[in-house]
Amino acid sequence: MITKLFRNASVFTPQDAGKPKAGADQGRIRIYERGALLCRNGRLAALGSEEEVLKGLSWDDVDLEVDLEGRCVIPGFVDPHTHLCFAETREREFSLRLQGVEYLEILRRGGGILSTVRSVRTTDEEALFRATRDRAFAAMRFGTTTMEIKSGYGLETATELKMLRVIRRIGRETPLDVVPTFMGAHAVPEEYRDRSDAYVDGILHEMLPAVVRQGMARFCDVFCEKGVFSIEQSRRILTAARQAGLGAKIHADEMHDVGGAGLAAEMGAVSAEHLLAASEKNLRAMAESGTIAVLLPATAYSLRKPFARGRTMIDLGVPVALATDANPGSSYTESMPFVFGLAVLMMGLSVEEALSAATLNAAYAVGMADRVGSLDVGKQADFLVLEAETPAGIAYHAGANPVVAVYKKGERVFGHAP
Amino acid sequence: MITKLFRNASVFTPQDAGKPKAGADQGRIRIYERGALLCRNGRLAALGSEEEVLKGLSWDDVDLEVDLEGRCVIPGFVDPHTHLCFAETREREFSLRLQGVEYLEILRRGGGILSTVRSVRTTDEEALFRATRDRAFAAMRFGTTTMEIKSGYGLETATELKMLRVIRRIGRETPLDVVPTFMGAHAVPEEYRDRSDAYVDGILHEMLPAVVRQGMARFCDVFCEKGVFSIEQSRRILTAARQAGLGAKIHADEMHDVGGAGLAAEMGAVSAEHLLAASEKNLRAMAESGTIAVLLPATAYSLRKPFARGRTMIDLGVPVALATDANPGSSYTESMPFVFGLAVLMMGLSVEEALSAATLNAAYAVGMADRVGSLDVGKQADFLVLEAETPAGIAYHAGANPVVAVYKKGERVFGHAP
Repeated sequence: MITKLFRNASVFTPQDAGKPKAGADQGRIRIYERGALLCRNGRLAALGSEEEVLKGLSWDDVDLEVDLEGRCVIPGFVDPHTHLCFAETREREFSLRLQGVEYLEILRRGGGILSTVRSVRTTDEEALFRATRDRAFAAMRFGTTTMEIKSGYGLETATELKMLRVIRRIGRETPLDVVPTFMGAHAVPEEYRDRSDAYVDGILHEMLPAVVRQGMARFCDVFCEKGVFSIEQSRRILTAARQAGLGAKIHADEMHDVGGAGLAAEMGAVSAEHLLAASEKNLRAMAESGTIAVLLPATAYSLRKPFARGRTMIDLGVPVALATDANPGSSYTESMPFVFGLAVLMMGLSVEEALSAATLNAAYAVGMADRVGSLDVGKQADFLVLEAETPAGIAYHAGANPVVAVYKKGERVFGHAP
Repeated sequence: MITKLFRNASVFTPQDAGKPKAGADQGRIRIYERGALLCRNGRLAALGSEEEVLKGLSWDDVDLEVDLEGRCVIPGFVDPHTHLCFAETREREFSLRLQGVEYLEILRRGGGILSTVRSVRTTDEEALFRATRDRAFAAMRFGTTTMEIKSGYGLETATELKMLRVIRRIGRETPLDVVPTFMGAHAVPEEYRDRSDAYVDGILHEMLPAVVRQGMARFCDVFCEKGVFSIEQSRRILTAARQAGLGAKIHADEMHDVGGAGLAAEMGAVSAEHLLAASEKNLRAMAESGTIAVLLPATAYSLRKPFARGRTMIDLGVPVALATDANPGSSYTESMPFVFGLAVLMMGLSVEEALSAATLNAAYAVGMADRVGSLDVGKQADFLVLEAETPAGIAYHAGANPVVAVYKKGERVFGHAP
C-alpha cells in the first residue's frame, strides 16, 4: 500500500453525482482553498480541507508528502473526441484552405480525409504507433490524462483493426487511459464511391463483427452528414453496434442540420459531437434524453466557422463536454487548455462550466466517469497542478500551457513538483 | 571569427527593401526550399539555396555545420508592443470580467491598471526584474528574439525610471534585444484624478526630461483614448518627446474613434497600435504617411471584442505589424505563435502577410530593422527552427508551440538542434 499526501493545494473540481452535469449544475464546482488530497495505491482516499484530511491521518502510513505551495489543482483533462491515430499531417492542405480553395477542390487535388486514409493504409503499424504516441505525449503535457481515440482512417477491415491495435497500445504503453472507438463510418472510401449502401453493408457484415469479436472498441461512431452517411444509414450502423455491446456516438450536424442530434436523442446515444448546425428542437431532445453534446471549438477556430452555441446548449439543459477533435485536417491540436480558452472566450461558457465540460462530462461521454473526471474519493488520483490561481488562469494565460505537473493514478508523469 | 553553416533548411523570410512592407508587397516573401544560412560572428554572411551558399565556401573556415533536416526556418519574431514589466498578474479581475462585471466596477473594487501601478510602485527592483525576466524567457521559448517593452506602470518619475532600468537589464541579462519605450502617459494616476493636464505638465517638465537625460528610452508612447489622454495632450507629449530625440508611438482608437490614427499619421509617428475603432479615413492617412499599424489580436481575443480589421488595413496599403501586447490586464500572453494564428484565422491575413507582420514590419515598428526582422545578409543571425513544413504550420498546429530551436546572433539560446 502506497500512500501519498498532497497538501496546501487550491483544489477545484466538479463533484460526481452519478450523472453528467447539466443546466445550472454544470457550473457548480467544489473548491478547497487550502485543500489536501490523500492517494492510496493510485486512488483518491480522501479529499477536503487540509485540516479535515490531516485529522485522523496516521503519519506512519504516509510514504510521500508533497506541499503544493498553494497552487491550483484540478482533475486531469478527459479528451472525449480525437482522431489522434494518423500518419501524416496535412499542412499544405491547411494553406490551400486559407487561400480560399474549396474543400471539393482540395479533394480533387488528392487532399482531404481520403489522403489520410491512403497514408494510414500504407504506413506500417509500428510507425503509426510511434507517430500516435508522440501526439499522445504532447496531449499529456497539456494535461490530458484520459483520451478517446477513434479509428476511421482505414475504411477497410484490416486497416481499421490496425488502427485499433495501435490505439490499444497507446493505452498500454503510455500513462494515459485510452478509450477506443470504432469509426468505420467516418467517410465513404474511394473504392465505394457512389455506393455508400454497399459500404455500410460491409461495415455491418464484416468490419463491425471483426472489431467486436476481437474486443477492440468500446464505442461506435458515425459521421452523419449530407453526402457522407444518412440518418438511416447511421441508425442501421449504430443499432447494430449497440446490439453488439458498443456505446453509440454520432458526428452530428457539423455542417448541415440533417437531424443527427435528433437521432442521437432518439437512440439514447451517449453523445453527439460537433453540433454547429443542430436545431434548437433537436437540442431540446438531447436535453430530454441526457445525451452529451461534445463540442469542438478548435475545429470551428481552424475552419473559421461560427462556434457551436455552447452557451445556449447549457441554458437548454444539455450536458456539454469539450474535446480537441485532434486530427490532421480540421483541428490539428492536442491542447485541452487551448480548447478551454476558446470555450470560455468564444462560446461564452463560464470557467466552472468549462471545467465540468473538460473533465466530468467528458468522462461520462466516454464511459469512464466511474474512474476519472472528478476528484471524488474512490476515483483514480488523476490531477493537474497549474501555474494559475484558479481554473480561470487556463483561459487567462492565453496561448500558454498552464500545466506544471500531471499526476496519473497518483504518479507524476509530467512536470515537476514545486 | 566564428563561422557556422546551417544547411538543409526550408527558409521563409521577408526581404528588406529599406522600408516596411505594405499592400501586396506585405505578402511577398522569399523561399529557399533547400536553403542554407552562413553566419559569421553572429551575422548573416550568406543566405540562399544550399548550392549557392556552398559554392565558393572554404570548408576550412566553417567551425560548425548543422543539418536542419529540411525543417522550416524563419526570422526570429519581433514583438513590437509589450507591457512585460509588471509585478503581479490579475487573474481574479479576468474572472470578474468573464462574469460580466464592467471595467468601471472592477476599477471601483481596486482592480484595473491602477492596481498594477500600485504593485509595481511597491515591488522592489530586483523582484520586478526577476518577474519580468521569467516572462522574457517564456517569450523567447515562443520564438521572440527582439522585444519592445514599455514603462507606464509607475506614473511617477522614480517608478518609471525603475521600470526602465529593469527593462534595460532584460536586454543585458537575457539573449533578447530589448527596445525600451517610455510610457508615462499610460494612465492618469490616482493622485491626479480629474487633473490630467497637471499630470501631463509633470510628464513634460519632470518625467520625460529625466528619462531622456539618463538615456533610458528609444520611443515615447501615449494612450490616446476617451477619458485617458486627449488628442491635444497626446500631441503635446509626443511633440516634446520627438524634440528630445525619441520616436513616437500611439495607443490609438482602441475603444473609440478619437482620431489617434489620424494624429499618428499627421505627426509621422512610426506606429499606431490597437486601432480597433480607427476610421477608414484615418487608416488611409496612415497608409499615406507610412505609419505602421501594430495589431494586437490576443487583446481582442481576451477582451472578447471584434478583431481589428487587419485585412482591410493591408488592402488600404497600411503596413501591418503584429504584437502580443503582453500585460496583466487585457492580454496575458507571451506567445507570438498564438498571435500569428489569430491574425491568420481571425483577421484574415495570409500566412505570408502575418510572417512579414511578425518579423520585418515589427522590426521597423521598433526601429530595429537595420539589424533584425529578416534574413538578409548583414543582419543578425536571429532565426527560428520550426516543427512545421512552412510558416502555415504556426497557425495549423493550434495552441501548440511550433518552435524547436531559437538562434540569436547565431547562438542557440533555446531548444535543440535536430
